[in-house]
Amino acid sequence: MFIVMRAGHNESEIADIIKRLQQLGFSGHISHGVERTVIGVVGQTYPELKETLEAWPGVEDVVPISKPYKLASREFQPHSTTIKVGHVTIGGDTIVMMAGPCAVESEEQLMATARAVKSAGAHILRGGAFKPSTSPYTFRGLGEDGLKLLAQASKETGMPVVTEVMTVNDVELVSRYADILQIGARNMQNFNLLDEVGKIKKPVMLKRGMSATIQEWLLSAEYVLSQGNKRVILCARGIRTFETHTRNTMDIDAIPIIKRLSHLPVIADPSHGTGKWYLVTPLAVAAVAAGADGLLVEVHPNPEAALKDGPQSLNFHNFAQLMAQISPVAAAVGRRVA
Amino acid sequence: MFIVMRAGHNESEIADIIKRLQQLGFSGHISHGVERTVIGVVGQTYPELKETLEAWPGVEDVVPISKPYKLASREFQPHSTTIKVGHVTIGGDTIVMMAGPCAVESEEQLMATARAVKSAGAHILRGGAFKPSTSPYTFRGLGEDGLKLLAQASKETGMPVVTEVMTVNDVELVSRYADILQIGARNMQNFNLLDEVGKIKKPVMLKRGMSATIQEWLLSAEYVLSQGNKRVILCARGIRTFETHTRNTMDIDAIPIIKRLSHLPVIADPSHGTGKWYLVTPLAVAAVAAGADGLLVEVHPNPEAALKDGPQSLNFHNFAQLMAQISPVAAAVGRRVA
Amino acid sequence: MFIVMRAGHNESEIADIIKRLQQLGFSGHISHGVERTVIGVVGQTYPELKETLEAWPGVEDVVPISKPYKLASREFQPHSTTIKVGHVTIGGDTIVMMAGPCAVESEEQLMATARAVKSAGAHILRGGAFKPSTSPYTFRGLGEDGLKLLAQASKETGMPVVTEVMTVNDVELVSRYADILQIGARNMQNFNLLDEVGKIKKPVMLKRGMSATIQEWLLSAEYVLSQGNKRVILCARGIRTFETHTRNTMDIDAIPIIKRLSHLPVIADPSHGTGKWYLVTPLAVAAVAAGADGLLVEVHPNPEAALKDGPQSLNFHNFAQLMAQISPVAAAVGRRVA
Amino acid sequence: MFIVMRAGHNESEIADIIKRLQQLGFSGHISHGVERTVIGVVGQTYPELKETLEAWPGVEDVVPISKPYKLASREFQPHSTTIKVGHVTIGGDTIVMMAGPCAVESEEQLMATARAVKSAGAHILRGGAFKPSTSPYTFRGLGEDGLKLLAQASKETGMPVVTEVMTVNDVELVSRYADILQIGARNMQNFNLLDEVGKIKKPVMLKRGMSATIQEWLLSAEYVLSQGNKRVILCARGIRTFETHTRNTMDIDAIPIIKRLSHLPVIADPSHGTGKWYLVTPLAVAAVAAGADGLLVEVHPNPEAALKDGPQSLNFHNFAQLMAQISPVAAAVGRRVA
Repeated sequence: MFIVMRAGHNESEIADIIKRLQQLGFSGHISHGVERTVIGVVGQTYPELKETLEAWPGVEDVVPISKPYKLASREFQPHSTTIKVGHVTIGGDTIVMMAGPCAVESEEQLMATARAVKSAGAHILRGGAFKPSTSPYTFRGLGEDGLKLLAQASKETGMPVVTEVMTVNDVELVSRYADILQIGARNMQNFNLLDEVGKIKKPVMLKRGMSATIQEWLLSAEYVLSQGNKRVILCARGIRTFETHTRNTMDIDAIPIIKRLSHLPVIADPSHGTGKWYLVTPLAVAAVAAGADGLLVEVHPNPEAALKDGPQSLNFHNFAQLMAQISPVAAAVGRRVA
Repeated sequence: MFIVMRAGHNESEIADIIKRLQQLGFSGHISHGVERTVIGVVGQTYPELKETLEAWPGVEDVVPISKPYKLASREFQPHSTTIKVGHVTIGGDTIVMMAGPCAVESEEQLMATARAVKSAGAHILRGGAFKPSTSPYTFRGLGEDGLKLLAQASKETGMPVVTEVMTVNDVELVSRYADILQIGARNMQNFNLLDEVGKIKKPVMLKRGMSATIQEWLLSAEYVLSQGNKRVILCARGIRTFETHTRNTMDIDAIPIIKRLSHLPVIADPSHGTGKWYLVTPLAVAAVAAGADGLLVEVHPNPEAALKDGPQSLNFHNFAQLMAQISPVAAAVGRRVA
Repeated sequence: MFIVMRAGHNESEIADIIKRLQQLGFSGHISHGVERTVIGVVGQTYPELKETLEAWPGVEDVVPISKPYKLASREFQPHSTTIKVGHVTIGGDTIVMMAGPCAVESEEQLMATARAVKSAGAHILRGGAFKPSTSPYTFRGLGEDGLKLLAQASKETGMPVVTEVMTVNDVELVSRYADILQIGARNMQNFNLLDEVGKIKKPVMLKRGMSATIQEWLLSAEYVLSQGNKRVILCARGIRTFETHTRNTMDIDAIPIIKRLSHLPVIADPSHGTGKWYLVTPLAVAAVAAGADGLLVEVHPNPEAALKDGPQSLNFHNFAQLMAQISPVAAAVGRRVA
Repeated sequence: MFIVMRAGHNESEIADIIKRLQQLGFSGHISHGVERTVIGVVGQTYPELKETLEAWPGVEDVVPISKPYKLASREFQPHSTTIKVGHVTIGGDTIVMMAGPCAVESEEQLMATARAVKSAGAHILRGGAFKPSTSPYTFRGLGEDGLKLLAQASKETGMPVVTEVMTVNDVELVSRYADILQIGARNMQNFNLLDEVGKIKKPVMLKRGMSATIQEWLLSAEYVLSQGNKRVILCARGIRTFETHTRNTMDIDAIPIIKRLSHLPVIADPSHGTGKWYLVTPLAVAAVAAGADGLLVEVHPNPEAALKDGPQSLNFHNFAQLMAQISPVAAAVGRRVA
């Protein structure tokens, strides 16, 4: 961490800063430049130190140098993490396909979808039992009944299940039924929930918050990792920008950035990333080309009648076409779809 | 709600849409324009209907016309809501000043601050016992000990207390000590938490999410209102933009917009809105000039030693100066500071 | 275009609006909904009409239905435009590779780069003679000397040249040397310049403005098209968001969106889209997978010594590797690299 | 400027960097921290050096320390610049009111508006003769005829005139008629135009680009200043964000930030800043409270019939009311309206 002094600071301010640093257990390394004096902070710094230093007299800016996350960083662990869920390995050579309805609506809807995506080549079943909803007046999911249906579909098809948990109180319940617990974009900084899923024995898929920086996203992963749960999967799903043609702007560039900064696997969700079904396939293949370890895709037997996210859901036919397009692109970048 | 048909749709698609609308209990009103055919949806529509209709064949776009929130809207309640907390009225002629430390750190720190802001003219004491933190490695608050100190400071100074609650499980605990429960920006769409504070008997101050639209903010207020808690206070605190000079861009324009769309009181938080103490006073007076019902300001006995948010905290002297500047501006726009 | 009336409007306001519409040559189609009254505007509307109508008494909102651009839209021209430049066809089955230095610095630098990218398989040479620069104190290009070098490199290698024109006064000059004139992101709404390049006989490559919506981008294309120049190429190059890890967020989703809305070819510029050389190749293959008609890539003999954009430039080796990765991905999506 | 070395760099990379720095005329100051090695660059750095250094082997990041603009900075000139235009002083104790129609439409419209705003207390007449327009099909101004009408209105009312110039070729023409030349938001980085208005003898009002950072805005001012024209006025006019309720988000916080970073006067344009007439007055008073040196307000005799910007224009009555509200707020912050 470096302290940049204000132009026109006086020497007593520097002396004062050196003394304060020593009181905190650091030493200060003064460096007089042509335009600015800079003090290097020597010692094991921590993120909140920046705010402390910024409030000191004579300080113009404080520049952190090391990254504020550690367990999530590739510097800490150079080799890529792979996560086994049933027979599926996430983060290895194989592109992992997670597919299913946005919300579990009924036994018929879920079972039909599970069979269809399985037969098209999906590896993991997705489906929401607890649904976040911007408005209090819309469908919020079937709750435990939805979880039971997911477990039933998993049993029949052999696919592990990923589903969202929205609140600390439901972590134990959802863990009973699901193989991977998803933390949704709106809860990416629900720190109590992150702490809680950090204590369980199941993998956690952490979606990027709509306006979270990549650093904030990795810091949220760090919450889970630092509680002892090392099986964290990141999921890119679009960010909020000024563009109004789509609900979100799909953050394809986050995929190679994460691969560089972190050892954790990263999945792409082109359904939420775009909000429009006809953009799902082009962005899905783009994500795989850019290095994604898998995809999360919303599929519905009849998107026109879906209770949630109809406009961004693929029907069975379109999902099969997506699968057909993924394979050659995966091969072109040295991966494969099992 | 209006359905805009795709150019080149065929007549059977229109007939199909009319039939589907009737099955859902609506009627359709066809209108052929020069470039597009539009179908008006007649009946009591609801927000999620948009998604359903967008997935129908031949549909290009669906345009909602009525607002998706109701209880929060000024159309529903034309007169402004006022909220009494102890002797303080929020939303009336008087600008309400809420001040105190970002985080409760110790009895000395809190009591000194409480006395100082009280003597400078503050009406409500703010202070965090549970602190959201981007990193798992930074200070996260004193918890219940912090709540006890807040209650003690409230008792001594006579100021009601506003403090944040971060999780459903703490609502009952925080309610025991606080007069107003704050929902932080990162929890604005923690829907389980919104449901829970909708059931209590205390006022709720709902901060705008960093990248929440004004409509989403009012929908989150609607969650609380629809559970029966009518005492909701909105708090503007800056939004995330491309600008990097400040942590956030202070959303002053949200203040008159909220006043027009909603009957709920709106408070401005220039401390989080800017992240820099020297911007707090100019933005505070701007907020009052723009119609804010009050201010939430971070004050610390010694910002240079604060555990959280030092760079954006005012010391006692600067807070007294802010108070001195607020009064004439409030008077200039027909308000007063008690 | 639809007029949404304010709740609580009165009948005389509606009568007044109908009369005003008739004076402007339109007719009004009234439709009373449960919550709102809406008036359909019948006739050949135009974009600025929205603003006019919004200012009328009783009006809450005006919703345009048709798109404000016409010549650029796929509705106007269903088949995709292809543009021939020398032996190269842009917008056809073949992925077109445009490569070269950010700025022309010297004969050696340019000739070496031109030969290297040609031998790696590039089709078009890029290079800047006039360089936009955020600061007045940095390198702004060699001007006409740079153009002459580009023409020389073109002659030797047989590759057509694309280069930026920044001001109306240089259009004639740049046209003399270049095969394609590029309009940079900062000039996307330099309307005088758009008019001017609309009158020339050479193709124009129009970059997306850093914060331009897709609709604004297509409206800028419409400027060029409406002056008679039908040979417009669009170029996606990243948009400005809150993320600070990269200079821009690469707008991969704009590629399939443009393909759907417009018949114009679209090129991707992953160099400016990301600002970091190690992200160029993953985003380049992602762009091709998503449907881009070509790529624009910055290449420099020695990026460490580049006068501009060194951090985002590939060296010859890395560019050859990029070319090797593009081919199989292009094939996987049914395209090829000549 | 500081070079942050990558974790795991080797000593030869450091030696190499020191040598390269020396070749460029700098010296390097090595500092080994616990987690990172940092090299301070000693000498007179310049902005583009950052890009050069970032491309060197072993470098992870380059952190500039001094600001890239100089003439615009308050460090360079501690006292605030005041600019005299006729009898009006911009940047002094008095709030300067600039008002008039978005576009000059006719003699009647302009003269009526000029008289009305003059009589309500305005100091400077605004009006557009050359209008930037997102669509090629909308009204683009009366051109020189508009300039002549502005000059006539100026003569009659005694108010100096501010009007926009859009292209290098019109600078001489517009200078003949106008007292202040305005550079619009879309041209903030039209560097040729900035160079050109840097050479004239009239003040320049530089609007902030829709997605320009404050630093980029000051760098554009630096273009004008570095050509010799010291009379630059900045104008805040709203920035592009994710919020869709308004056309822009009014950047009130930019006002005190500019006052701190620069000596140049800053004007606020709440008409473009919000796009809605009913938000103009609250944001105007907020801007004055936050420290703006003046306001730029769109006024039209009959906004409902305006050719441009009707929804954000005040009529004469509303402008008089705005003037009445500005005075006490100006007084409250120690300013006055002449």
